[in-house]
Amino acid sequence: MTTKELVAQIHKKKSFLCIGLDTDLEKIPPHLLEEKDPIFAFNKAIIDATHHLCVAYKPNIAFYEAYGIKGWEALQATIAYLNAKYPEQFTIADAKRGDIGNTSTRYAKAFFEDLKFDSVTIAPYMGKDSVEPFLAFKDKHTILLALTSNQGAFDYQTKLIEGKELYKEVLQVSRTYENAENLMYVVGATKSEYLAGIREIVPDQFLLVPGIGAQGGNLEDVCKYGMNSEVGLLVNSSRGIIYASNDIDFAEKAANKAADIQAQMSQELAKLNA
Amino acid sequence: MTTKELVAQIHKKKSFLCIGLDTDLEKIPPHLLEEKDPIFAFNKAIIDATHHLCVAYKPNIAFYEAYGIKGWEALQATIAYLNAKYPEQFTIADAKRGDIGNTSTRYAKAFFEDLKFDSVTIAPYMGKDSVEPFLAFKDKHTILLALTSNQGAFDYQTKLIEGKELYKEVLQVSRTYENAENLMYVVGATKSEYLAGIREIVPDQFLLVPGIGAQGGNLEDVCKYGMNSEVGLLVNSSRGIIYASNDIDFAEKAANKAADIQAQMSQELAKLNA
Repeated sequence: MTTKELVAQIHKKKSFLCIGLDTDLEKIPPHLLEEKDPIFAFNKAIIDATHHLCVAYKPNIAFYEAYGIKGWEALQATIAYLNAKYPEQFTIADAKRGDIGNTSTRYAKAFFEDLKFDSVTIAPYMGKDSVEPFLAFKDKHTILLALTSNQGAFDYQTKLIEGKELYKEVLQVSRTYENAENLMYVVGATKSEYLAGIREIVPDQFLLVPGIGAQGGNLEDVCKYGMNSEVGLLVNSSRGIIYASNDIDFAEKAANKAADIQAQMSQELAKLNA
Repeated sequence: MTTKELVAQIHKKKSFLCIGLDTDLEKIPPHLLEEKDPIFAFNKAIIDATHHLCVAYKPNIAFYEAYGIKGWEALQATIAYLNAKYPEQFTIADAKRGDIGNTSTRYAKAFFEDLKFDSVTIAPYMGKDSVEPFLAFKDKHTILLALTSNQGAFDYQTKLIEGKELYKEVLQVSRTYENAENLMYVVGATKSEYLAGIREIVPDQFLLVPGIGAQGGNLEDVCKYGMNSEVGLLVNSSRGIIYASNDIDFAEKAANKAADIQAQMSQELAKLNA
């Protein structure tokens, strides 16, 4: 999917919501455990109930990998279902991968070609030759970790490197990478006051913002500091939506939570268009 | 496996060689492609031919993930074979994972409990709460990326952060993590002159050194600057060993290459014991 198509979807649905599919067998409604593939059954029900309210889905790969081959099959079934039934959805493999040169190409092929995700999250620590192999794929997007929403972000990311915070150095340096137009960035919503400074460095790029809801971020602040003229934001919520209920009505309750956020997003988009 | 058991294996075999199982269907001998599981068939033959010459095996997970479920099955078969037939081998999942808190715990369970690897490689960018979930597993080892052997290492890792190179800050800060005794570090052999400075910060920890051979590192220099009284080194070679031949004699040729390195290692260990 191109960035332009993503922006069109955002305006059409009045939503820039991304739903995180962090599917955990210990948290899904117990009645689903009787299904042949409980993880996919859960995801399918969530997707069918929420697809009109969001523009992106983001499975965190750790949750699938933790179940071995069974998990990998559930991930394949989920992305195949999304691509077949809801091709207008932007799909994010939240994998936080990163390796050297030809090994990065392996990961890129796994997520972009075999699984057919639109994008994948990548860690920046190994530098340019670990990121550029992902950027080489046309109309695929590489979402680089810049400023994460966890406490450990203050260990290195916010420390000064050559006079500039490390996450700002990551933003700046990555703009010089080949095919940098395929970059997006992860920026935690719990630090929305940082967004203004981030926008000075990457005014045009999309930002994937986790941490709304469960992790304490505020949507209005995120939009105030992070939105650009092309919206430029995907705001993720995982647990707050998908685990709204663990009863028979879980999908309906998830849709209600997603609708609440979509309504707020619609207001924020109206401000942009005013 | 405990560190003490690893050190005992090193002295017993006069080797601190780790063999990287970066198994690529395009590079393995063509006759293996007729096997039901060519990746496992290749790995099994390499392991059977080299196990007496090395103390560790390191599958790079990207190579397996790239083949989807088939790759995952080959990885499972490989680690199960190692654990059943050669339990004295130290096993490393070269996954370079890293995520937030409970998500890191998912990855840790996948590699330590389900697959039963002794260790996993981890990226440091997300800080303490992304690493500590791995450290919580008893007699399991977390191998943190410090200084990698690729060109991109100079993008951030060697830059000064608060007056110290970022990779040194990673070494220093990680020593304060809970269960830090379960840490090892990745340090690229192409930068063996850095090893003296690294040993000042982490005198006791094991270092996993990739980049001997194909990537240009020199074993004698690595030992001169990196070896400690408990050896403290695992030196990895992947392509230089496993792709020594792609003919019917591939396993034998791989063993020859491994034997060459083991002979050099034996000399270096003799210096330590002198």
